Amino acid sequence: MEFTARQIAELISGKIEGNADTSVNYVSKIEEGKPGTISFLANPKYTAYIYQTQASIVIVNDDFKPEKPVETTLIRVKDAYTAFATLLDYYNKIKYNKSGISEKAGISDTAKLGKDIYVGDFAFIGDNSKIGDLSKIYPQVYIGDNVKIGRNTTVFPGARIYSDTVIGNDCIIHAGVVIGSDGFGFAPQSESNYLKVAQIGNVILEDEVEVGSNTTIDRATLGSTIIRKGAKIDNLVQIAHNVEVGENTVIAAQTGISGSTKVGKNCMFGGQVGLIGHINIADEVKIAAQSGVGKSLTTPGEIVQGSPAFDIGSYRKSYIHFKNLHHLKSRIDELEKKLNETKD
Amino acid sequence: MEFTARQIAELISGKIEGNADTSVNYVSKIEEGKPGTISFLANPKYTAYIYQTQASIVIVNDDFKPEKPVETTLIRVKDAYTAFATLLDYYNKIKYNKSGISEKAGISDTAKLGKDIYVGDFAFIGDNSKIGDLSKIYPQVYIGDNVKIGRNTTVFPGARIYSDTVIGNDCIIHAGVVIGSDGFGFAPQSESNYLKVAQIGNVILEDEVEVGSNTTIDRATLGSTIIRKGAKIDNLVQIAHNVEVGENTVIAAQTGISGSTKVGKNCMFGGQVGLIGHINIADEVKIAAQSGVGKSLTTPGEIVQGSPAFDIGSYRKSYIHFKNLHHLKSRIDELEKKLNETKD
Amino acid sequence: MEFTARQIAELISGKIEGNADTSVNYVSKIEEGKPGTISFLANPKYTAYIYQTQASIVIVNDDFKPEKPVETTLIRVKDAYTAFATLLDYYNKIKYNKSGISEKAGISDTAKLGKDIYVGDFAFIGDNSKIGDLSKIYPQVYIGDNVKIGRNTTVFPGARIYSDTVIGNDCIIHAGVVIGSDGFGFAPQSESNYLKVAQIGNVILEDEVEVGSNTTIDRATLGSTIIRKGAKIDNLVQIAHNVEVGENTVIAAQTGISGSTKVGKNCMFGGQVGLIGHINIADEVKIAAQSGVGKSLTTPGEIVQGSPAFDIGSYRKSYIHFKNLHHLKSRIDELEKKLNETKD
Repeated sequence: MEFTARQIAELISGKIEGNADTSVNYVSKIEEGKPGTISFLANPKYTAYIYQTQASIVIVNDDFKPEKPVETTLIRVKDAYTAFATLLDYYNKIKYNKSGISEKAGISDTAKLGKDIYVGDFAFIGDNSKIGDLSKIYPQVYIGDNVKIGRNTTVFPGARIYSDTVIGNDCIIHAGVVIGSDGFGFAPQSESNYLKVAQIGNVILEDEVEVGSNTTIDRATLGSTIIRKGAKIDNLVQIAHNVEVGENTVIAAQTGISGSTKVGKNCMFGGQVGLIGHINIADEVKIAAQSGVGKSLTTPGEIVQGSPAFDIGSYRKSYIHFKNLHHLKSRIDELEKKLNETKD
Repeated sequence: MEFTARQIAELISGKIEGNADTSVNYVSKIEEGKPGTISFLANPKYTAYIYQTQASIVIVNDDFKPEKPVETTLIRVKDAYTAFATLLDYYNKIKYNKSGISEKAGISDTAKLGKDIYVGDFAFIGDNSKIGDLSKIYPQVYIGDNVKIGRNTTVFPGARIYSDTVIGNDCIIHAGVVIGSDGFGFAPQSESNYLKVAQIGNVILEDEVEVGSNTTIDRATLGSTIIRKGAKIDNLVQIAHNVEVGENTVIAAQTGISGSTKVGKNCMFGGQVGLIGHINIADEVKIAAQSGVGKSLTTPGEIVQGSPAFDIGSYRKSYIHFKNLHHLKSRIDELEKKLNETKD
Repeated sequence: MEFTARQIAELISGKIEGNADTSVNYVSKIEEGKPGTISFLANPKYTAYIYQTQASIVIVNDDFKPEKPVETTLIRVKDAYTAFATLLDYYNKIKYNKSGISEKAGISDTAKLGKDIYVGDFAFIGDNSKIGDLSKIYPQVYIGDNVKIGRNTTVFPGARIYSDTVIGNDCIIHAGVVIGSDGFGFAPQSESNYLKVAQIGNVILEDEVEVGSNTTIDRATLGSTIIRKGAKIDNLVQIAHNVEVGENTVIAAQTGISGSTKVGKNCMFGGQVGLIGHINIADEVKIAAQSGVGKSLTTPGEIVQGSPAFDIGSYRKSYIHFKNLHHLKSRIDELEKKLNETKD
């Protein structure tokens, strides 16, 4: 997509200085600007670059006063950073602005489809499922029976939403995500094999939840596995049956949360973290990457590390000593030697 | 789906006390019972709840004697817990009772399809592949060439079964699983690049194996990667080429097993465990979550933890001292000081 | 597929000794040879097996002189190992030699398709995307808009390539891989919720890259996430936005690399390794399995372990002392006791 300075200025309510017909088709950082791209200058530290940049257009603050001649086309706005972000967002919206319902999709007669939705080729929508207005179901998505998807939610290619799942408004589900598969519920039997326990609960995603690629979220045994409003879950995360993730909690890639654990609001978990089942994590708790949490963390705002995890400051101190254990051991050797000498 | 007390009583051979026309469409725990749900009372500890529960129907043991008036409809059976489990199982069977072969599937002319199977929209079945009676192939599943799938096996949406894979009876393969992709076989070459080694073996899953969502199982270089009868593998697990997993072994989410490792029967691995390649794990070994196993574990029933893993009791003791290393170090400081004083 | 000794001899320029009509349909190790299979003898240590093997055909070196009668059919070649590898490769090529463009695929009118390509059922190819000659797009693959795929690249079933991705020649993308999904870019807002930052960069895979099943590679915020020539990435790996992986670097399963980290050439990462964002890893660095790297590693060839990781030799020493901490602690107890006695 190509845009002229004139089009962009209109979009962000800016004033052009230079050639209004200059056109760009991509964005760049000002220090790496190439012809045909648009950039921005917000941080005064980068001012020097505006005299050298190859970017064809640069968005600047209203009050920017060049000290040397500027060759690139300028667009002046009140707040260059916000204007640039608006532009990116607009670009993305155009890019992902798919619409229409493919004739190559497989949609149940009993499914209820909202207005202005997109359903791509080879997508499957099961019985009694409901897709809200403006939502986008990309090609090859699977939506089982009795699923409810809210307004303006995007489900990217090949995500699998099992039956009975409820997804709110403004959610983003990335490619390959599996929501609502059977939890790992096996009752050990006498002869050391396992009886599968039917998992008849569901999964609920509240509004504004984002779920990263190939993440898996299991349905509840009874009741619901719940991801609360605004929670952000990265790629390849495992959320087991009956887990609850609190509002605006952020979970980095490859973390796993075992069955029935409840996580509070505004928590931040690093990558590859593991949580045992049936525990509670207080609000605003932070867990360092690769940590393993084996018991409830009840103090809001607590920060932990280690496997099993404990206070991060203490972990770091212990780890420094761990690195020096050879040294500590030598000192004990020495002490023993000296003490023996002393006693002689 | 709605069921009346009368229908349910017939199904579980029970006797109704109360309104036989009461209908329910879901289940609940007795302590959280809501109108329109059915619950059960088996554990005497929960008896008090039967006088307050909002559940419309409660299944009770024959010998239950109310001490106060009960408002809900009761169904009396010999064993309330077993009857409830039977009911759940029945419910699940109805729910997943898909059948018929979609005209929107892509099925090779040389594929052999059993009786009473389900093949969903956009499923692909390759040349010479065989699907046993009563098996269910959900939408968007890929089954390559020369695959054999047994009787009453379910393959959920978007699972990928590469060519030559053999899957037994009564297996469950969840969404997004990949079985039979090429193992990570690269022969380092002189100029520090890699020659891909053709992987021409396959994967065999025996009967009653369950594989969780987005798990990956690589084909063998030669011979077979084998998952033995009754093994249960959770979500996002990695099983490398030529691995063997023993009967009824249970592997929790995000665990990885490297090439050619053999795991015994009835083992239990926690989440995020890693095993190096070319080792043997004895029967009934337990490995704590996040542990890394770097050598064979030859004692049946052994329990290990740590990275590298060793005896779990010793690990836990060492870890307590690790948390106190600061303290131990201070004691050494103190000892050195005192000893110097003593010598003076 | 069945081949006769005659057909195979022709293929590998060999000379038959025995029945030229013997046919085989699979390969075996000489020590496990079964009727109907072909094997090879290269290593003199295995010579004894040639007199017992059940394999129907064995490839041997020209200069092999049997000391006893051999029952199997022999094919003599200059170098038995290379001939066998050639054979495997040939077998694999036939097996994966799919071709033709399915009428059940969903291909944009503006997509550009090369010569002799394969596009399977239910594959989707978006607007302006380009598939190079000889490339294979398996069933149910999703290729978004403006994607470029080079020559002789294979994309296995159900892989998802988001828009703007660039993939080189001779690459292999396994089933369930997701390339180009949105990075985990959220700007924290005042009210402790998050603003999604538009990710408008892309992903570039250079030539001869292999990506394992269900691995996820996020697109860059701006610019590109880059996987350099010859890099091999195993299953279930997470590569975040703006990461760069150097030439011929090998990354084992379930490893995760956080945003903007740059990894050098010829590195080797074990399984379940984690790297923090915004760091640099020098060429030829090796990272032991389950290690966590929290800072740049600037010495080429460095080998590290631990979480956080440090020099592998030091880690191993420290870990031995960790296992004996109970012992060290007892020695300190003892020292304190003795010192007190001494002072008395």
